Amino acid sequence: MGQSITFHKADQLKAKPDAGQLGFGKYFTDYMFEMDYSAEEGWHDPRIVPYGPISLDPAATIFHYGQEVFEGLKAYRTEDGRILLFRPDKNMERMNQSCARLNIPEIDEKFVIKAIKKLVAVEKDWIPSQSGQSLYIRPFIIGTDPALGVHPSNTYKLLIILSPVGSYFGNSIHPVKIYVEDEFVRAVKGGVGYAKTSGNYAASLKAQTKSEELGFDQVLWLDGVEHKYIEEVGSMNIFFKIEDEVWTPALNGSILPGVTRNSVIGLLKHWGITVKEKKISVRKLFKKAEKQKLLEVFGTGTAAVISPVGFLKWEDKVIKVGNGEIGELSQKLYDTLTGIQTGKSEDQLGWTQEVKIEKEEVKEKAVDKAEEKAEKKPAVTE
Amino acid sequence: MGQSITFHKADQLKAKPDAGQLGFGKYFTDYMFEMDYSAEEGWHDPRIVPYGPISLDPAATIFHYGQEVFEGLKAYRTEDGRILLFRPDKNMERMNQSCARLNIPEIDEKFVIKAIKKLVAVEKDWIPSQSGQSLYIRPFIIGTDPALGVHPSNTYKLLIILSPVGSYFGNSIHPVKIYVEDEFVRAVKGGVGYAKTSGNYAASLKAQTKSEELGFDQVLWLDGVEHKYIEEVGSMNIFFKIEDEVWTPALNGSILPGVTRNSVIGLLKHWGITVKEKKISVRKLFKKAEKQKLLEVFGTGTAAVISPVGFLKWEDKVIKVGNGEIGELSQKLYDTLTGIQTGKSEDQLGWTQEVKIEKEEVKEKAVDKAEEKAEKKPAVTE
Repeated sequence: MGQSITFHKADQLKAKPDAGQLGFGKYFTDYMFEMDYSAEEGWHDPRIVPYGPISLDPAATIFHYGQEVFEGLKAYRTEDGRILLFRPDKNMERMNQSCARLNIPEIDEKFVIKAIKKLVAVEKDWIPSQSGQSLYIRPFIIGTDPALGVHPSNTYKLLIILSPVGSYFGNSIHPVKIYVEDEFVRAVKGGVGYAKTSGNYAASLKAQTKSEELGFDQVLWLDGVEHKYIEEVGSMNIFFKIEDEVWTPALNGSILPGVTRNSVIGLLKHWGITVKEKKISVRKLFKKAEKQKLLEVFGTGTAAVISPVGFLKWEDKVIKVGNGEIGELSQKLYDTLTGIQTGKSEDQLGWTQEVKIEKEEVKEKAVDKAEEKAEKKPAVTE
Repeated sequence: MGQSITFHKADQLKAKPDAGQLGFGKYFTDYMFEMDYSAEEGWHDPRIVPYGPISLDPAATIFHYGQEVFEGLKAYRTEDGRILLFRPDKNMERMNQSCARLNIPEIDEKFVIKAIKKLVAVEKDWIPSQSGQSLYIRPFIIGTDPALGVHPSNTYKLLIILSPVGSYFGNSIHPVKIYVEDEFVRAVKGGVGYAKTSGNYAASLKAQTKSEELGFDQVLWLDGVEHKYIEEVGSMNIFFKIEDEVWTPALNGSILPGVTRNSVIGLLKHWGITVKEKKISVRKLFKKAEKQKLLEVFGTGTAAVISPVGFLKWEDKVIKVGNGEIGELSQKLYDTLTGIQTGKSEDQLGWTQEVKIEKEEVKEKAVDKAEEKAEKKPAVTE
């Protein structure tokens, strides 16, 4: 798709939030990327426009039949001032897998990565630089047809919004408390569990609320068929260090194929550690723990990178992992991954992509809106 | 909730569509109902406003985590000019059940019924009057918080939109062809299958598309656990007439508790016919068919009311039901239900509610927008 990305200048820019107060997904930058789809034109009119409300017919598909996919990745600022993305190709590959499941037309993965890079370049001053901070990137696609028949939409909108985010855990990472959810189910084989789509998250809210009421941080999801096998924790993938090996549930159609999950497996193998992707029953896991063989537990995801689990409850059984402290391997994975992401460690596996700031970027931002309108054609091309 | 519903007059009204071309959910009326929720104010600012786009922050919960519930019901015009709603109390009861599952704050069921009636009264001229036509009513609630953390929204919007719809089947009802879906799963116990929420429909699109490619009209969903037991057909509930009895899958947490389903069961019992709500295996069903004991199959739902099934395929087995014609009981149910809905038959079970057109309705519609603004308070109260 050799289309030009047009740039529409904002009348004024926002004040940036206090770097110490970022939290997660609370603040958004000055611009967003937008692109439309129709059967006749395909994906068209890619543009960077001022961040602001989107206007949709109340009958739009997204409001009734939830045709949606999204992705989450981050841009990091390195100490020497470069901007890095972490494996955006994996996110775009997954986005197309999600699209296929949700009957959403395929995207041109390379083009959307280009759009992400262009948007991040425009918003480079929004990338926070303190330890653990980054610019969270949220591409998403919604069905927009104004019609109530239950069928795939004919028209779609792809948006990319950016949010400067803080460290999920402040300066250190604290192990979380989780319990095994035995009432609610997140996903089942044949459903949409492997796709990154809004319905999976809607279905998870009830259990998440319950876990907080019970004094836990997150839930550990079991499979929807037998309620025996471990799937994910909260909205992260999960890993167990059992003696010298690391186990994680095999991708089975109801588990999200996390980019961080894939990266952790890659790193462990690179280090010569045995990783087993397998069906893991919660019963077996607790037996391993009883025998003091369960040494570390951690979740993986883009938001938290590595999230150690310190406490695990299933029915009336409780496991304390690592005396409430982060394990050695979890820490090493966290340090290595964040090191690669922020350019502190060597990127031996070729996972980062640099966002180049073109000289024209400054020029582009200065293009006048009036001029754009007068010309009635894309004012700025990539 | 003793709140007043304000009325905001449209500058101009639309031309009404050709009554013969209505289809389903393609045209929308001049006005919609809107109401907002915040933790501080609860549900507030109920208003009837001109139908038009809604404007939402691109980070709104609905676009990312699918927090949504909806309902579908119809207003019918009787031959003597009255307007009837069919069991709106059941729809509102279910809406609150859906809200509870999706962590959406409860609505005041009576108040929303009042809002529906008021909106339908305003739009009375949009109710089509030909056989099989009606005004479809779509209430829905969406989470609107502009924040990307995965948690229930703090703010919501409830909307009601109206669409004049034609008969699902033209003048007669044609039996549909369905096949037993053995790859994709709609819902599973512990999930959101019993709730009317967008994610269930998003998950169903792939199988629906597949069924059309294979030359079928709809799919028959099996349970997500054993892939053995019948759940629903397409987006309808399903019934089987087996000898002198009628069977339908028991509500098990993954089946939508349809209002038409409930009404069909009520009518059958009223007529002294044995109805069994039970676990029905597809194997057993096909055995009954082999023995010529499966006499009728039909789906039930608000859109089609009764949808006879004439052809059913499972693996390499095929059942033809009733020689491709609608069965006697299916026809009687269709006639009775549509008779009650349109006021032609006596409503012995007290299922209809009349929408009264108040004399003030005319006055209300004439209230000037300028006046409203000048007064800075609700211009019209219910």
